[in-house]
Amino acid sequence: MILAKRSITLLGAGTIGASWAALFLSYGEKVQVYDSDQNALLNVKKYVERVWRDLASIMPDHPLIPWENLLLTQNLKRVCQDTVWVQENAPDNLVIKHRLLSDAEGVLEKHIPIASSTTALMASDIQAEMTYPERFIVGHPFNPPHLIPLVEVVAGKKTDPELTERAKAFYESYGKEVIIPKREATGHIANRLQAALYREVVHMVATGIASVEDIDRAIVHGPGLRWAFLGPNLVYHLGGGDGGYAHYLDCLGPSQETRWKDLGEAALSDETKGKLVNGLTETLGEASMTDLRTKRDAALIGLLKLKKHLDGSAT
Amino acid sequence: MILAKRSITLLGAGTIGASWAALFLSYGEKVQVYDSDQNALLNVKKYVERVWRDLASIMPDHPLIPWENLLLTQNLKRVCQDTVWVQENAPDNLVIKHRLLSDAEGVLEKHIPIASSTTALMASDIQAEMTYPERFIVGHPFNPPHLIPLVEVVAGKKTDPELTERAKAFYESYGKEVIIPKREATGHIANRLQAALYREVVHMVATGIASVEDIDRAIVHGPGLRWAFLGPNLVYHLGGGDGGYAHYLDCLGPSQETRWKDLGEAALSDETKGKLVNGLTETLGEASMTDLRTKRDAALIGLLKLKKHLDGSAT
Repeated sequence: MILAKRSITLLGAGTIGASWAALFLSYGEKVQVYDSDQNALLNVKKYVERVWRDLASIMPDHPLIPWENLLLTQNLKRVCQDTVWVQENAPDNLVIKHRLLSDAEGVLEKHIPIASSTTALMASDIQAEMTYPERFIVGHPFNPPHLIPLVEVVAGKKTDPELTERAKAFYESYGKEVIIPKREATGHIANRLQAALYREVVHMVATGIASVEDIDRAIVHGPGLRWAFLGPNLVYHLGGGDGGYAHYLDCLGPSQETRWKDLGEAALSDETKGKLVNGLTETLGEASMTDLRTKRDAALIGLLKLKKHLDGSAT
Repeated sequence: MILAKRSITLLGAGTIGASWAALFLSYGEKVQVYDSDQNALLNVKKYVERVWRDLASIMPDHPLIPWENLLLTQNLKRVCQDTVWVQENAPDNLVIKHRLLSDAEGVLEKHIPIASSTTALMASDIQAEMTYPERFIVGHPFNPPHLIPLVEVVAGKKTDPELTERAKAFYESYGKEVIIPKREATGHIANRLQAALYREVVHMVATGIASVEDIDRAIVHGPGLRWAFLGPNLVYHLGGGDGGYAHYLDCLGPSQETRWKDLGEAALSDETKGKLVNGLTETLGEASMTDLRTKRDAALIGLLKLKKHLDGSAT
């Protein structure tokens, strides 16, 4: 039996909530999950069962799932007791989040932080209607949070300035890599970058420059290999030869600018959505969602181990 | 001694030409490299020496560098004899390429294909002034070509239709993954995607949303990990839960569109270039270009081996 160190509360038991639950359990914490939907709660159990072997391979201290540390309930008041941290993972809709956080604040001590996993909403907008907005912050993970290290911590206008550092320390204690945008922006940092790339994906599919299959192959056999280890700035530094980034920008900056002018706009019309979905379906063949998730997780686990090994041998 | 199977001609001995040379040598080919600059030719030797141990770890048949298969010369006529394939890697400038290809055509049999490694130019523009434009095609690799599998094959308006398949087969015979855009476009496919992402990098640095360091960390600890294995379409398919890509687009498509509206324009002014270079310099600390290249190549080799292992165990 693992003695739980802290109790963490998760509001919302979708894919992100379930993955957070698996991560915190693997660190020996007590996890209290609330959702109004009983099926979502049951899916958390299935999710933890599915991913535990992966987690055990990188966190070998916990071979068995400590079910006694997992509370799944439709009782909001219960999960808001005896907790040190609330992580909210409701659908990315301001009305839903306002209502949920209002209900939670009614039963939660006022000094307990509430972090939101929101992808698309602004911290200031979510906290605007809170009774104690200073305790609110964004802690945005990437799917699946139990494997992807990145968490973006974003304070809203009314967030207690000290909470940013506290949130950073909290996520880092679970092995996460935290970045802090200098100011609030739609999509924080990483999802702005993903959205920028994806807009051109949609543009190329919609206008017939490339197929869905070739676009996905281009990334995984090309730039995606480098981005697993090198950020875009470092990639171009290495692309500049001995002159580095400055030389790259002087020589190839103009050709970046030429490309920028040629990039397209995109809109997700029904026709374009059809092209995207059909294009992907042709590529996937018989692969089920479970197959794909299993393959993805095996790949991420292998990559995380490789990065750890390279970091260890680099010093 | 390795018996060379084919002779391949490389025009231009910069970083890309040197890396192509290492790749073709590792497959036992004879490689004939032309450059007007003697120093560039000497750098090819150094490059091959540096990367050979990496190549030998994935191509274990050739532990020793077959120097007898490498010809380095400032004599264009010589490299254009006894060759099956010409790969041009001159600076990405139309005037330079026109002149070089004109000179090469003067001494090259007319049935020998000429492929260009061009990143930014259009196949039709390069071939426009050629005597035998039907033999011209783009075969665009990614830095470093001896490790990154992706090659984009793009025909120009006057390219012999059969050359596209022939080029595909040529690159595939050296372990490359070939994609063929449906039509010519500035930046082909992968560099349009990179440019789209990079424009937002520059925008965020220029407008103070994020630091160069945090942007690079965001990619390598977040989306970059997934892109090593999953293209952007497949990432969102898995982000859609059991409903897959269609569900993702219905639920989260609107938040993509919101982000697209908020993405910025960018220009590489001297001030912005300064911010980019200074931001990266702070991040890199003492790391030399050689250290960074060695680390990059070790990471790519590890990742390529991991992908091979995962592909092997997936079936």
